[in-house]
Amino acid sequence: MIYFDHNATTPVHPEVRDAMAPFFEGLFGNPSSLHAAGRQARTAVETARAQVAALLGATPEEMSFTSGGTEADNWALHGRRRVVTSAVEHPAVQSAAEVVRDGGGEAVFVGVDRLGRIDPDALLTEVDRGDTDLVSLILANNETGTLQPLAQIGPALRARSIVFHIDAVQAFGKIPVDVEELSADLVSLSAHKINGPKGVGALYVRRGTSLASWLHGGGHEQGLRAGTENVAGIVGFGAAAQLRSREMTTEAQRLEGLRDRLASGLMAAIDEVVVNGSTTHRLPGTLNVSFRRVEAESILLGLDMEGIAISSGSACTAGTSEPSHVLLAMGIEPRLAAGAVRFSLGYGNDTSQVDRVVEVLAPIVARLRALSVF
Amino acid sequence: MIYFDHNATTPVHPEVRDAMAPFFEGLFGNPSSLHAAGRQARTAVETARAQVAALLGATPEEMSFTSGGTEADNWALHGRRRVVTSAVEHPAVQSAAEVVRDGGGEAVFVGVDRLGRIDPDALLTEVDRGDTDLVSLILANNETGTLQPLAQIGPALRARSIVFHIDAVQAFGKIPVDVEELSADLVSLSAHKINGPKGVGALYVRRGTSLASWLHGGGHEQGLRAGTENVAGIVGFGAAAQLRSREMTTEAQRLEGLRDRLASGLMAAIDEVVVNGSTTHRLPGTLNVSFRRVEAESILLGLDMEGIAISSGSACTAGTSEPSHVLLAMGIEPRLAAGAVRFSLGYGNDTSQVDRVVEVLAPIVARLRALSVF
Repeated sequence: MIYFDHNATTPVHPEVRDAMAPFFEGLFGNPSSLHAAGRQARTAVETARAQVAALLGATPEEMSFTSGGTEADNWALHGRRRVVTSAVEHPAVQSAAEVVRDGGGEAVFVGVDRLGRIDPDALLTEVDRGDTDLVSLILANNETGTLQPLAQIGPALRARSIVFHIDAVQAFGKIPVDVEELSADLVSLSAHKINGPKGVGALYVRRGTSLASWLHGGGHEQGLRAGTENVAGIVGFGAAAQLRSREMTTEAQRLEGLRDRLASGLMAAIDEVVVNGSTTHRLPGTLNVSFRRVEAESILLGLDMEGIAISSGSACTAGTSEPSHVLLAMGIEPRLAAGAVRFSLGYGNDTSQVDRVVEVLAPIVARLRALSVF
Repeated sequence: MIYFDHNATTPVHPEVRDAMAPFFEGLFGNPSSLHAAGRQARTAVETARAQVAALLGATPEEMSFTSGGTEADNWALHGRRRVVTSAVEHPAVQSAAEVVRDGGGEAVFVGVDRLGRIDPDALLTEVDRGDTDLVSLILANNETGTLQPLAQIGPALRARSIVFHIDAVQAFGKIPVDVEELSADLVSLSAHKINGPKGVGALYVRRGTSLASWLHGGGHEQGLRAGTENVAGIVGFGAAAQLRSREMTTEAQRLEGLRDRLASGLMAAIDEVVVNGSTTHRLPGTLNVSFRRVEAESILLGLDMEGIAISSGSACTAGTSEPSHVLLAMGIEPRLAAGAVRFSLGYGNDTSQVDRVVEVLAPIVARLRALSVF
């Protein structure tokens, strides 16, 4: 299999697997237990907390582990009055904002330009139109990889005492993400996007930030999020963060090279290929392209039959036939949006795989176009 | 190490570990992805759903996976008007009921008898005193193992169209739990109490049951609980349920034998030992005893130095110096409650371990009593 769908999920890295392994059987204690088995588990959780915090420029006490990015996003928006967000958010933030609205609050979705970028001034105008208590923005878009100019927005929100939540699920571990540089108050993270395990994420909570209480029960996670800690998962998240802190820079360069080779290859081999999103402000390994007069799902299935895994839109909305809300918000015509596929590269991908994908895809597109009724 | 703290958490069983292993690296797809890697993950999740449902007498469509028992409990109580529960609930239900009350709703905590049992008639009287929309009761108490007469309560609640939530986290996989026999509408489960992994649980939701929406985002878990599925964890939960469905009956008998041997051994070797909770309606592997004129934490630490792991109260409240709310609700004097420890047995425990614990504990209690100021 050639796996070019790393924005959907990633395999657990061998180094992460080895870090997790002892915590299923030998070191299986409950971190809340007072005996030796419990204390060992507690130490492991706190070590992982420091590892994740370090890659975010945060202190360990500011990190609360969750069951994933979706939970972190829901928590950040829970109980807010007026949320200003964008039209290109992940479904988790989009839906959580709708819940705020449905509960009698207000949710404002600001538009983006043709490249999927927010205009900071337009955003702040919307922020000042009401009693905004939270702004939630995605740092790196999951479908296009487009990066938002958040460092330009954070200080203005701090000056207004408005909580700034950043969905960094796709950015963390791929590009530098620093809570100070971004003036972030809340940041959502996920382990399984960076070769950690599924089922674990975190919410960074700057000291003093207004935040609704969440899961209730024992006093876990500084009393904010009850429930026995997913020790092995948390240890894996820590190991994945540590791996990224060591390899992120070189891996980003490598993936950029592969991504650009893939884009050039596709454009050389196939007519009417359009890159969606910004090409200058973008995640290293993400390429979103539309093939005119072809439907994305047909491409996806054609590649699947050749053992190549890619995605149309995001995995979280796969199986729905509607074109991507992200691409539509960018003003891309629905028919072109319907032909958009996402290639997302990661560990294990190499030039021979890139060349193979181009080689396989060209005749698939040609065949689909011959049949196309567009 | 001798581990007698299986109600706090359990090691992952080798059979469960082997079932999970392929889903970290080889079969790592996102179940929402349309390609082969995604479809394989989807199949694995649905197989596990059927395995968990089977042990509960439920259909797979009625099971929603969560990050654990605490999340399931919080979800079940979320957004309710008037909750009737008991004074001996796990902190997750206790706290979630307090959240209902703090949010302007009502929470009623009915008392229990000296053995920790609810009186069904007294409970129904409280239910009928207001516009109750949910009753939440623990099936097997986590501290004492006492079983509640829930099958006598369910039909009366159904006749009143009141949602019946059962916290079966400690019961599931240890004794038969059947949603039809119990007339249950919602049931909370957890994997790590039955030699499955931490970080995964489930909420059984009977078709047609009123339930607030929970995590928002993608359409995961029948649209009820968004977020990329913890595939390996879910597979592990399924394997653990399957293991229990095969071995539960014989293992329950074995643990009862060990538990009773431990109780007799302690009573023969140590004076003034009091068993807390019911001895006729009790989980097979749980023994909660108070040693007069001794503090539980001192016993726990004394045994810990000998490599023996037990618990005072529940792991979720460990480290707090207050006596157990469960024992106090049973009318046990605070000084006796302060000397209560929980032995909870499981896979891997045997008679030689039981005998060793008795042998080690007797002189510890004698030493502590010699120093006691009680």
